[in-house]
Amino acid sequence: MFIKDPMAIEDRSMKIIAPHLEGLALTDDEKIICSRIVHASGDVGYAPIVRIHPDLIDVAKSTLSAGKNIFTDVEMVRRGINIRTFRKFGGEIFCKISDVDTRELAKREGITRSMAAMRIFGKRLDGQIIAIGNAPTALFEVLRLVRDENIRPAIIIGVPVGFVGAAEAKSQLIAQREIPYVTVVGTKGGSSIAVATVNALLYMLDNSRGLIEK
Amino acid sequence: MFIKDPMAIEDRSMKIIAPHLEGLALTDDEKIICSRIVHASGDVGYAPIVRIHPDLIDVAKSTLSAGKNIFTDVEMVRRGINIRTFRKFGGEIFCKISDVDTRELAKREGITRSMAAMRIFGKRLDGQIIAIGNAPTALFEVLRLVRDENIRPAIIIGVPVGFVGAAEAKSQLIAQREIPYVTVVGTKGGSSIAVATVNALLYMLDNSRGLIEK
Repeated sequence: MFIKDPMAIEDRSMKIIAPHLEGLALTDDEKIICSRIVHASGDVGYAPIVRIHPDLIDVAKSTLSAGKNIFTDVEMVRRGINIRTFRKFGGEIFCKISDVDTRELAKREGITRSMAAMRIFGKRLDGQIIAIGNAPTALFEVLRLVRDENIRPAIIIGVPVGFVGAAEAKSQLIAQREIPYVTVVGTKGGSSIAVATVNALLYMLDNSRGLIEK
Repeated sequence: MFIKDPMAIEDRSMKIIAPHLEGLALTDDEKIICSRIVHASGDVGYAPIVRIHPDLIDVAKSTLSAGKNIFTDVEMVRRGINIRTFRKFGGEIFCKISDVDTRELAKREGITRSMAAMRIFGKRLDGQIIAIGNAPTALFEVLRLVRDENIRPAIIIGVPVGFVGAAEAKSQLIAQREIPYVTVVGTKGGSSIAVATVNALLYMLDNSRGLIEK
């Protein structure tokens, strides 16, 4: 028979993942992020491609604890974040991809909706958390806002996916050293990876169990 | 500069993916599913591990066209499906993971919530579409309903993820030959993979563009 108890499943999964994180010079908190990403993808190939800025853990903890908001590129990321845990800190999660003003700007400029959404957020991103799981263009736009418009998010979780721009956008995220980030190099990524990262940070702050929707 | 136009991004992505699908003996429709999965994951390693039942394409098309419903294990899957396209056919998408009766049954039985949700759906699954992107236990439960309670979903998109039960549940899905399925062998999978599969099927039926949330 198979294991049906959600806590037993999670514990067993983490035990299976742990050896794959050895030798990667990760701190304990960084291991939590990496193991949640591997857990969410079923892919141990993620372990060596995760990149975490050295200030990320501290800044993420203080930002989340202060009740700051999360801005996502797509609804799947918004929907996957553990909202019960997140709400305890007082923040809200915003996604504008389906809003009318976003659609209009995207159409007018010939850009993706998620890129338009980040442009419209603009100054609202100052001091907040960004979680991009799908669109390289959204990450390119956030990096432009940082570079050209002096906007300063607290942290950027930037794991857009795919063969067109994703690796380049994530390289640019790593190359800027000012805003702490979590990313993965290369083409892989996605909403599940962004969600796993945010939830890993939440679990560091609130370790009550029953956290995974399974 | 990077490509900002969503249609150009998608076209370029599909051109990059196409060579990775050669030599896999896929039909044109099966290639659409595989390429969407690779596109959604940024991982060409998915191409050889996708498994599609020979009747899947025909049954999926007729079931979706008939306005049947989709039952998902987690909210991320519900949320990622292209709802505008899906609604044209008249179906609805259901997810019970957060409902009170699901929580109560899961707690009482010591099982996962997504497993409890499938058990409560029960007879409602007859003739409908199931999309499981997260929990192996949900897929085990659906296969039990088929085997022991004579429930007959039209198709099962079963791509649960992880190191505890996922590979086994997906092997069982392949071993039963009665219900057409899409799955991936091994530990990989996830909500994004389930969503990519459902959306690929929708695009076969309704090829108006602007389909990807980017």
